[in-house]
Amino acid sequence: MCLVVGFGCGSPEPRIDTSDGLRQAIATAKAGDEIVLANGTYTDLALDFTGRGTEGKPIRLVAQEKGKVFLEGESYLRLSGEHLVVEGLVFRNGHTPTSEVISFRTAKDSLCTNCRVTECVIDNYNPSERFESDYWVGIYGRNNRFDHNYLTGKRNQGVTLAVRLDSEESRENFHRIDHNYFGERPLLGSNGGETLRIGTSHYSLSNSNTLVESNYFDRCSGEVEIVSSKSGANEFRGNTFHECQGTLTMRHGNGTVVDGNFLLGNGKPNTGGIRIINAGQQVTNNYLYGVTGHRFRAALAIMNGVPDSPINRYHQVTDAEARGNVFIDCDHIELGVGSDGERSAAPERSLIADNVFVNRKRSDLFTVHDDISGITFRDNLLDEQLTAPQEAGFRNIAIELAGAEGLLLPTGLPAADSIRTRMADRGTPENCGVDWYPIREEGQVFGNGKTIRITPGENTLSDAIAQSAAGDVIALSAGEYLQTKAIDLRHPLTITASGGEKPTLLFRKTSFINLENGGALTLQGVRVDGRECLDQPLNSVIRTSRYSMVNNYKLIIENCDFTELDVNHSFDVVRVAKHTFADSIVLRNSTFHNVSGSVLPLHQENDDIGIYNAENVVIENCDFDQIGQAALHLYRGGTDESTFGPFLTIDRCTFDEVGMDRRNRSDSAIRLYGPQSVSITNSIFDDSAPVRLHLVVGDPVISLADCVFSGGTELLDNGAPYTTENLLFLPEPITTLPDGRAIGSQLQ
Amino acid sequence: MCLVVGFGCGSPEPRIDTSDGLRQAIATAKAGDEIVLANGTYTDLALDFTGRGTEGKPIRLVAQEKGKVFLEGESYLRLSGEHLVVEGLVFRNGHTPTSEVISFRTAKDSLCTNCRVTECVIDNYNPSERFESDYWVGIYGRNNRFDHNYLTGKRNQGVTLAVRLDSEESRENFHRIDHNYFGERPLLGSNGGETLRIGTSHYSLSNSNTLVESNYFDRCSGEVEIVSSKSGANEFRGNTFHECQGTLTMRHGNGTVVDGNFLLGNGKPNTGGIRIINAGQQVTNNYLYGVTGHRFRAALAIMNGVPDSPINRYHQVTDAEARGNVFIDCDHIELGVGSDGERSAAPERSLIADNVFVNRKRSDLFTVHDDISGITFRDNLLDEQLTAPQEAGFRNIAIELAGAEGLLLPTGLPAADSIRTRMADRGTPENCGVDWYPIREEGQVFGNGKTIRITPGENTLSDAIAQSAAGDVIALSAGEYLQTKAIDLRHPLTITASGGEKPTLLFRKTSFINLENGGALTLQGVRVDGRECLDQPLNSVIRTSRYSMVNNYKLIIENCDFTELDVNHSFDVVRVAKHTFADSIVLRNSTFHNVSGSVLPLHQENDDIGIYNAENVVIENCDFDQIGQAALHLYRGGTDESTFGPFLTIDRCTFDEVGMDRRNRSDSAIRLYGPQSVSITNSIFDDSAPVRLHLVVGDPVISLADCVFSGGTELLDNGAPYTTENLLFLPEPITTLPDGRAIGSQLQ
Ligand SMILES: [Ca+2]
Ligand SMILES: [Ca+2]
Repeated sequence: MCLVVGFGCGSPEPRIDTSDGLRQAIATAKAGDEIVLANGTYTDLALDFTGRGTEGKPIRLVAQEKGKVFLEGESYLRLSGEHLVVEGLVFRNGHTPTSEVISFRTAKDSLCTNCRVTECVIDNYNPSERFESDYWVGIYGRNNRFDHNYLTGKRNQGVTLAVRLDSEESRENFHRIDHNYFGERPLLGSNGGETLRIGTSHYSLSNSNTLVESNYFDRCSGEVEIVSSKSGANEFRGNTFHECQGTLTMRHGNGTVVDGNFLLGNGKPNTGGIRIINAGQQVTNNYLYGVTGHRFRAALAIMNGVPDSPINRYHQVTDAEARGNVFIDCDHIELGVGSDGERSAAPERSLIADNVFVNRKRSDLFTVHDDISGITFRDNLLDEQLTAPQEAGFRNIAIELAGAEGLLLPTGLPAADSIRTRMADRGTPENCGVDWYPIREEGQVFGNGKTIRITPGENTLSDAIAQSAAGDVIALSAGEYLQTKAIDLRHPLTITASGGEKPTLLFRKTSFINLENGGALTLQGVRVDGRECLDQPLNSVIRTSRYSMVNNYKLIIENCDFTELDVNHSFDVVRVAKHTFADSIVLRNSTFHNVSGSVLPLHQENDDIGIYNAENVVIENCDFDQIGQAALHLYRGGTDESTFGPFLTIDRCTFDEVGMDRRNRSDSAIRLYGPQSVSITNSIFDDSAPVRLHLVVGDPVISLADCVFSGGTELLDNGAPYTTENLLFLPEPITTLPDGRAIGSQLQ
Repeated sequence: MCLVVGFGCGSPEPRIDTSDGLRQAIATAKAGDEIVLANGTYTDLALDFTGRGTEGKPIRLVAQEKGKVFLEGESYLRLSGEHLVVEGLVFRNGHTPTSEVISFRTAKDSLCTNCRVTECVIDNYNPSERFESDYWVGIYGRNNRFDHNYLTGKRNQGVTLAVRLDSEESRENFHRIDHNYFGERPLLGSNGGETLRIGTSHYSLSNSNTLVESNYFDRCSGEVEIVSSKSGANEFRGNTFHECQGTLTMRHGNGTVVDGNFLLGNGKPNTGGIRIINAGQQVTNNYLYGVTGHRFRAALAIMNGVPDSPINRYHQVTDAEARGNVFIDCDHIELGVGSDGERSAAPERSLIADNVFVNRKRSDLFTVHDDISGITFRDNLLDEQLTAPQEAGFRNIAIELAGAEGLLLPTGLPAADSIRTRMADRGTPENCGVDWYPIREEGQVFGNGKTIRITPGENTLSDAIAQSAAGDVIALSAGEYLQTKAIDLRHPLTITASGGEKPTLLFRKTSFINLENGGALTLQGVRVDGRECLDQPLNSVIRTSRYSMVNNYKLIIENCDFTELDVNHSFDVVRVAKHTFADSIVLRNSTFHNVSGSVLPLHQENDDIGIYNAENVVIENCDFDQIGQAALHLYRGGTDESTFGPFLTIDRCTFDEVGMDRRNRSDSAIRLYGPQSVSITNSIFDDSAPVRLHLVVGDPVISLADCVFSGGTELLDNGAPYTTENLLFLPEPITTLPDGRAIGSQLQ
């Protein structure tokens, strides 16, 4: 029997509510039946698909035509029963009101056995709240298959695909997850950005026996763990990780096999490899290329454990094998990583053998954090110039590389030959996902649109922006621009000067430009003057949405001057809201004079669970003068280790009389709390509140070099280590570096 | 000439965009012309009305029919020129994108002279952001009139009607503001909630000469100042203040006259009177009835000043006269109020004469805060049982009261006779505003709707709520209710048990019920159990919108039990967002056991400018046991004196093992920072983190009585004074009060 449900085929995206017909069809379906969802768009469809098919006669729920059936709004799908198949649905333009978009259960005790979801798409199906958690797919029960699906653009907290082991009936499950295309997952800036998780620590001593095979992970960069295996006896085979900023981690559980996977970092920053924790893990015949990450994100990371670890901490590595893997141009191999007072149990009874290491740009790959006498090294090959971590078990030879289907592999070495035999089965963009839905680019791009030229006047800028599209450039001729309305920006836009004298931007609302969800801004060559602003506290020039933003944003300010931002107290240059996240904030060649508030107060995440407001902050060749509160306050509280940022660079900047307002609760000119990577160079801190460093988590890489602290400005820290070089502390105020070098944009 | 602009008359609310036609009509209009806006709804209409009429021949912009022309969305109106009249427009369903809905200027130097706006309505025309400031009306220029308008439901920050003196051309303006109906303005919980402000401190030494006459102020309770006169030589005559929780304040500027006004507190809490600051103020022949406020909100408050005051602080009161005023059943007269280290200049050369004071419920009205030798008292009459602040100038006599047009006035006294002659001209609901638009009630009411009975099941509660309307009651029979979706509540609703065993509420999302803008909840007789919740931090049972809420909300929890809210850390019972404001939160006869987070973490306003999260917090007969973080954290930072709250009552409660979680950053079982009124009685604090009091602003009224601090629980303060009575500190834990009295709902 074949039931077609839904109406309006042929008409452009008719809105259909078929709940009753569909419920009826499902309730009466028998083994071998096919329920066809008619082409069209279904809104708020809560779809419970239950039934009992048989091995040869499943009950199928399918799209009339693939790519023409859309579930939108608050639609979601739950399945339970036996031998059910779902095929060809697209979830988009909405989000699930429940905890899962596709759930392999309809109630706590109604699970799936031998069910399959194939050729479905979930495309940016996110709530508006970044930290409203959900999973896109939750797999329960046993012997289910999830294959050939395309999942792209998950931006809120919560695992993309979770295999759940939370009842006896879901363990030893033998699920198969294969040939899925996991599209881009942007940085979450928090724990909960995993793409695939199997189990949780609670049940991690149970075996899951899940097979993850021939999937394609494309720029899945939500957090440290792209794949988090948290149960025993899983197998990862033939998966490709393309430029993912995170790792395949055996976080909990024992006896997992990672064989024949392809991790292609391609030299991109922060790309990650394979991380081993717990007992009996097998990591064999994997190919890693251009993986640049270090520490937890190293190409190969073998961690230290906690003696008698609680179930949710780090179990000691024992009986691990890393064999026959090939590392080309990967930057770090870390052994005993995470070693600290708590994680003091070094690896035991483990083997690193028959691996090949080539790096054509550096000589040292290995970082040994603790005693590695529990690891046996055997027959590992190093390219000629590489240094071994110890003599035994390593041999330097000249290794030649040759192209093979787009990969660079050593010639004449058995490890490479094993990998070559596995190439045919690896996941690729071609054999993963579906071929009837376009692959999306999820990022923000500036400057690829049209140019709109405008002249001075009242609201001429907002009028132009209302007409603009993503990537457009608004070019301003010289003169005064007055905004009596705030501007809500919802796409990437460049505002730049046409040439001649810098245009002056004035505004009357509490803010000038609001980066709403989807918005991003490059501001170039303008003067921003606060003299027309409302006489009230807490104005700002640029602010994020006051609401949570599920899209990350970019903000780039170049060659701009900010002045007279002091009509009332606490006037900030940039104001960000809680639960917004900047991919990058760049201030370059710009001046900030007479600001009563702060320039970059990036400290709105106050839950102390490892969430923060900006991943990359770059401040170059800028001059800060008379800033009431902190020029920069960058805060990441908590002890969570799921993220890598924030990253901060300050170079060639001058800070003069910064942070002296009595309302400056940070009591700092710059306050950095919990940053993971900081470089401050060639800068002067004069007559200012202290520069404060509070280092709390991980082993952050922090350095200050060639800086002057004058007029009594202090550098204060919490006692945690960081590196300094050529810092000069002077009691008197100064205006130039002692060697005469010009610093700060006003001094160029 | 009469131009009719717009189309669609007769059809129900057609959406019209007439921008071009209207612009054309305005551009060509001549003295004596009338431009008629056709009936209908205009969306996003940016209306600049400019022109030059003459005294006998104004240019008029009028509604085709009053009450049938609506400006919605982002519509706003600006006028400039001479002899323009606007009549009959209604602004609703939207907000202005600029700083003013109706502005008497089109640019900084294009102002109005002899212009009039009459019979216009602005109804709840608010942005969604509570602290996105705007004015509803800004009056610039000279000789303008704003009369017979109806303005109701302003809920965001910013003065309702502001007379601006920010250029020479706007001073000595002789504007007339008369017969307007200022409808309800709910508590803002911040500075910026004034209904009428004339001038700002900057220009306050200039005269404004604005006449404010015969207006009706109905429950205008935005902040301390309902009217803030901040310039010289204004006149307030014949205005009625009906149950306004705030005062008519002569905040800056000299020589203002307040004569023949009617301030009817009607015994409602926190209602306010007339406050005198600066030189030469005349307060005569006013009638005040049932004004209960004290201190700044007293029926008559004469303040101390700051010697050589900066222009934005408090100028000394000199040459003030308060004569012929009648105070019936008002509770406080405060002299030298505000006296402190800074405000040390007592009133000078002032006169209090011929006033009549009657209070039938108390004997002491007067509070003298400083030296009052600079005030001459003469011929003031006190009802028999009242106590005079000094002998000279006061006389006790038997005063009889008689009804007069709804007011209660003394018989046979000259002061009352003067007031009687002024009654005909006072503002009333009948002679103010317009007669063609209904008066709105702006508050939230529970229980006036229908009852919906439901039975246990999955999402039966959210299904019922989706069908509910404001004031409805959802009655739950016994059993388990599982919510797999969060519930967004947008109107007042009661959830209650039908009887029998307490129904159990379970939920799976990060929160159970979300109070979105407009939402309010009474929850009665249920058990809330967290055992089904997501295993992640920061869950909550009830939260406000994560967005700013422009509507205040109420939350009442009675006879409920909360348990197992500890699946992960920081699980709160209630979670509020920044820029949301509770009118009231009440916890009564309820228990809270095993909560990993906080019960009432009301500390999300972190800007330290006098904003806070809840006005009234009442906790009665509740039992708190094993609460990880603070049971209550109530925070009001900053030194602003524009608000009265927060108010807190705790009575008959038990706190046992509260606040001991290492993540409890407040390090308190209860932390009160900057509260204005606190009463804690008959409660036990056992084995808990400290109770912390930090008193910072005003002279808050704080008392603790009949409480036990046992098991080492500390009571800590910042050294500011408060009153205590019968507090017992015991090193050992206890379970009952020493006198055997039962405390806490579990002990009843
Ligand atoms: Ca994680
Ligand atoms: Ca005020």
